[in-house]
Amino acid sequence: MHELGVVYRNIQRADAAVADALARFGSATVHEAMGRVGLLKPYMRPIYPGAQVSGTAVTVLLQPGDNWMLHVAAEQIRPGDIVVAAVTSECTDGYFGDLLATSFKARGARALIIDAGVRDVRTLHEMGFPVWSKAISAKGCIKATLGSVNIPIVCAGMQVTPGDVVVADDDGVVCVPAARAAQTLAAAQKREANEGDKRDIFAGGTLGLDYYKMREGLAKAGLRYID
Amino acid sequence: MHELGVVYRNIQRADAAVADALARFGSATVHEAMGRVGLLKPYMRPIYPGAQVSGTAVTVLLQPGDNWMLHVAAEQIRPGDIVVAAVTSECTDGYFGDLLATSFKARGARALIIDAGVRDVRTLHEMGFPVWSKAISAKGCIKATLGSVNIPIVCAGMQVTPGDVVVADDDGVVCVPAARAAQTLAAAQKREANEGDKRDIFAGGTLGLDYYKMREGLAKAGLRYID
Amino acid sequence: MHELGVVYRNIQRADAAVADALARFGSATVHEAMGRVGLLKPYMRPIYPGAQVSGTAVTVLLQPGDNWMLHVAAEQIRPGDIVVAAVTSECTDGYFGDLLATSFKARGARALIIDAGVRDVRTLHEMGFPVWSKAISAKGCIKATLGSVNIPIVCAGMQVTPGDVVVADDDGVVCVPAARAAQTLAAAQKREANEGDKRDIFAGGTLGLDYYKMREGLAKAGLRYID
Amino acid sequence: MHELGVVYRNIQRADAAVADALARFGSATVHEAMGRVGLLKPYMRPIYPGAQVSGTAVTVLLQPGDNWMLHVAAEQIRPGDIVVAAVTSECTDGYFGDLLATSFKARGARALIIDAGVRDVRTLHEMGFPVWSKAISAKGCIKATLGSVNIPIVCAGMQVTPGDVVVADDDGVVCVPAARAAQTLAAAQKREANEGDKRDIFAGGTLGLDYYKMREGLAKAGLRYID
Amino acid sequence: MHELGVVYRNIQRADAAVADALARFGSATVHEAMGRVGLLKPYMRPIYPGAQVSGTAVTVLLQPGDNWMLHVAAEQIRPGDIVVAAVTSECTDGYFGDLLATSFKARGARALIIDAGVRDVRTLHEMGFPVWSKAISAKGCIKATLGSVNIPIVCAGMQVTPGDVVVADDDGVVCVPAARAAQTLAAAQKREANEGDKRDIFAGGTLGLDYYKMREGLAKAGLRYID
Amino acid sequence: MHELGVVYRNIQRADAAVADALARFGSATVHEAMGRVGLLKPYMRPIYPGAQVSGTAVTVLLQPGDNWMLHVAAEQIRPGDIVVAAVTSECTDGYFGDLLATSFKARGARALIIDAGVRDVRTLHEMGFPVWSKAISAKGCIKATLGSVNIPIVCAGMQVTPGDVVVADDDGVVCVPAARAAQTLAAAQKREANEGDKRDIFAGGTLGLDYYKMREGLAKAGLRYID
Repeated sequence: MHELGVVYRNIQRADAAVADALARFGSATVHEAMGRVGLLKPYMRPIYPGAQVSGTAVTVLLQPGDNWMLHVAAEQIRPGDIVVAAVTSECTDGYFGDLLATSFKARGARALIIDAGVRDVRTLHEMGFPVWSKAISAKGCIKATLGSVNIPIVCAGMQVTPGDVVVADDDGVVCVPAARAAQTLAAAQKREANEGDKRDIFAGGTLGLDYYKMREGLAKAGLRYID
Repeated sequence: MHELGVVYRNIQRADAAVADALARFGSATVHEAMGRVGLLKPYMRPIYPGAQVSGTAVTVLLQPGDNWMLHVAAEQIRPGDIVVAAVTSECTDGYFGDLLATSFKARGARALIIDAGVRDVRTLHEMGFPVWSKAISAKGCIKATLGSVNIPIVCAGMQVTPGDVVVADDDGVVCVPAARAAQTLAAAQKREANEGDKRDIFAGGTLGLDYYKMREGLAKAGLRYID
Repeated sequence: MHELGVVYRNIQRADAAVADALARFGSATVHEAMGRVGLLKPYMRPIYPGAQVSGTAVTVLLQPGDNWMLHVAAEQIRPGDIVVAAVTSECTDGYFGDLLATSFKARGARALIIDAGVRDVRTLHEMGFPVWSKAISAKGCIKATLGSVNIPIVCAGMQVTPGDVVVADDDGVVCVPAARAAQTLAAAQKREANEGDKRDIFAGGTLGLDYYKMREGLAKAGLRYID
Repeated sequence: MHELGVVYRNIQRADAAVADALARFGSATVHEAMGRVGLLKPYMRPIYPGAQVSGTAVTVLLQPGDNWMLHVAAEQIRPGDIVVAAVTSECTDGYFGDLLATSFKARGARALIIDAGVRDVRTLHEMGFPVWSKAISAKGCIKATLGSVNIPIVCAGMQVTPGDVVVADDDGVVCVPAARAAQTLAAAQKREANEGDKRDIFAGGTLGLDYYKMREGLAKAGLRYID
Repeated sequence: MHELGVVYRNIQRADAAVADALARFGSATVHEAMGRVGLLKPYMRPIYPGAQVSGTAVTVLLQPGDNWMLHVAAEQIRPGDIVVAAVTSECTDGYFGDLLATSFKARGARALIIDAGVRDVRTLHEMGFPVWSKAISAKGCIKATLGSVNIPIVCAGMQVTPGDVVVADDDGVVCVPAARAAQTLAAAQKREANEGDKRDIFAGGTLGLDYYKMREGLAKAGLRYID
Repeated sequence: MHELGVVYRNIQRADAAVADALARFGSATVHEAMGRVGLLKPYMRPIYPGAQVSGTAVTVLLQPGDNWMLHVAAEQIRPGDIVVAAVTSECTDGYFGDLLATSFKARGARALIIDAGVRDVRTLHEMGFPVWSKAISAKGCIKATLGSVNIPIVCAGMQVTPGDVVVADDDGVVCVPAARAAQTLAAAQKREANEGDKRDIFAGGTLGLDYYKMREGLAKAGLRYID
């Protein structure tokens, strides 16, 4: 958050196989697998429902009303990346539209996560380029003031370091530090194996109260049933 | 709102036939039929469009970041119920996902109304289990502190008593006290009978100004037309 | 904003051909063509995705919780108009539903832009009558206090004068003053001609950095690349 | 919340001595003494700092932009009352100013709690008539639509029944049901006796970790200290 | 709102004697005297309590994060002016601090009304230069993009034309069009004459119900008293 | 943000002399001296006006509605520290009151910065223990779930590492990384030397337009003056 006017060209991306494998678990499972940390604030919403992605973070720090650094960031994208963008103060302007999306896609980017606004959302949907943002706004940007690319940023309340894995779906966006990606994947796989069985059990009428053996804890906490 | 750590097992549910019959009128008509009261705040939004339900309220008071009582509530659900949940302070965490939805559905619940967040929204849509909530968030909950089940609660600014009828659709959520359910149904039926005719009349070009005989009232209030 | 209780019957509408032609460019392009002014605040959202319209503004100033003047406005609608409504203080009530939409449509209105709430949104979607609003709410309105029709208003932070052209789509809502409609159309056409080519160029891998010749400016501003 | 157009003249006020005695404990202690329930949402703020009051609730349900029922409520005030007002939908208009405050004061009211706006705040401060509100707004109100007086209402997310005790200070507003007022007072007194000692203990350097014997619980929960 | 990059040097200021005389009535009385229009949104708050001013508007349209045009505006200030500033999109940055305030004061400005943030608020208080703003923020601004000075703007939801009278106090900010300033002053004077008497009457215990003869209207509207 | 259940006992605090010296410059000057980075979001407000502090950060990550870790943090405080606290999801509960303040003060803490609520604000003011927070709320907290102490956190949108310098006053809160504290102090001193002169110059009527030589830049950017 503390360096303006720099572009780091060489970042340590998380292992690609791990980064790719996390997508299918979705943000809720990955968030649990992380130990319930890493979630961006829930005001970050997909511009269209149904997309589910993961990838390695290329980070951008922008100035209010100014999208110059998104053009600079485009050059740093490698296939499998997700661009994660923050602004130095709150802004809802439309920083990103179909032309930048065309560039990002041509470079291999899988999505944009931006703590600001975007536009051309219908075209982005048609192109299949998913975006999670704070706002949708037709207002374009100027290109006048430097920010940075590939420095650690805070996006929607969460620290994101270049190369971290980002997982996003209809439930939100999670950031997994590169160093913890492999163990998070393992934990997510284990967790998911569990879930499948549980769904059948609960569908059969077994209650969580019994399955998770909650009754004793509840009684100890003093829960009273009144007829 | 004032009792923690209790579960009322026997609640007086509104007449099932009446509760069921209210669904087709939708929240706007029911709200009018109630005399323009009973509406939850409009920040309560469906997680997917198109669902329209009614049912009898099982109420839950939750603690921030803690969904223990939703498991307790599951056992109190009977077919035709809608679970209505409030939190003791504002929270956007994801209190409810596909596993709890599976349990709720197995018990016969028709929907969840929660003044907080939910997750697994894509799966909930696929399952056809509708939720009206304040937020969507991948963040899960702990199970540590007691709330209550089936006490009177305030959900999104509206008092909801266990057994009241809840009606929800794309326009919002209305609570109809059990004691007023039958008369509200009658008023809704009468109101709807009226509306059908009106639609044709207005489609034919007749203005509300004339149909509702507003011109005199407007003139009396001093409305001036300027050419 | 300063006159209550009046209806102006004769307003100077922007040229119909120009007003009609602006729809296809969408709000983002029109906003750029205007020189980046004219946009309503981005909290104005369509009640369903995909609609894209333009038309001439019939303006309405409403009182909180009171939709009387929408009935008065209906009579002033001519084919090709879009009704733009503001409230004297912030309100989320449902001012507009399927019956008023039927009237508006019968008079030739193309859309409603309202800095407040609407209801019957599923029916409005089925009818194909698009609305951009601040809220969705089942709460209906009374008819007790005068506002005005066809005075200059401020809607969602933007001045709208009767007869101005309004352009709305999934990206938001732009107001084009009648006197600037023709030149804005010309600028939009020119801008769009440009965009098509660009999309192909960027899809081919050319970066905006090079296409827009940004590298020199960035270097001058002091951007440093670090390996 | 469900009855419009009525004024209940005879309400069961909580015991006056108990209601009066609660003021000095303040909202935080009373909220704890209640078992952590009863608090209105924290957006309710005093219009000037330093006031600390308690009293019995006279409730009012208002319509948006309409303060007619505050005049009706004035007549129902008895010495020692606090007027608690809610609106049928969100509104920030200035429902209350120096003239109504003069009336309320003449009737013996101690404060106003209103989930909306007020005005003349400098004069109210000079008069020493405290108000807790959601907003301050110079916008006045009409007198056109009925609400109710002395029905149960929801104010800022909390159920308030006529005759309940209300306690308000710089930390917020708490509602104590009349039936629980005496036991809450006793609990508050006991709690406060405790606090005085604690302050000295903590000022002397003893940590809450030790005083509350938290170390074992923290260790059990798995807290790790790293040097 | 629609012209960028221009400074109008000659504006038609409202009569100075009228503009000056409005201050003592305050925003609530002036708003009533205007017929309940002209109020800026209530999120505009004074940075310190107790200031009460009026003056003629010099308007500024700013870009997000950019306060260049406040320097341009300084030169256009004449004694008795109040600067009113809007931004082309929502921004909370600190556009104004003690140095600009020193300049503004040296030119004879009485206050700043800004739909954005300011800083150095303690020094501004010490200097006695009042500001009504949306936010307080230590974040400074760049000087890179043109806005305009003395064009009609929308500030906090209200149209403000250069030369209009602005009245601000602890209750909020009202804009009085220059052409209506004299009649508004007359109406405010008449209104105030009335208020003084009323205060004594209400202090003596007479109710608004009787003084305003509301009982009949309430009965007609159907109000029921229940013992 | 990514490690729960740990307390780091040995942190690298910024040089005490530097940390102390930064207070008198205030958040606005320090923010500029940092190159316009480091500011927490402006919703962080002091609970009483006039406090101005700096100190070294002890960081805390809390769970929603749970202040257990503030007790753990108390033990890690050394004279000259400022406690900076974040929550894993948005919460307005009152995490901190007069008892914890007594402990913090006894350990030598100078202030609390918390992205949540606090209570006992009148007593905190009397004690002279300043707090910058997002909310004020009488609602207390439980002690049930682990967070962490002295890990890097994100507080109100800004990354804060244990040992960083925090500067807070009526304009907001800035975080200065320990490694940049000395150079920031030097820059602030230089900047301030400048400001004093400027104040006199502007008070004398010289415009920023001339002093900063902005006229040429404005003309180049195309600014037009119209008489």
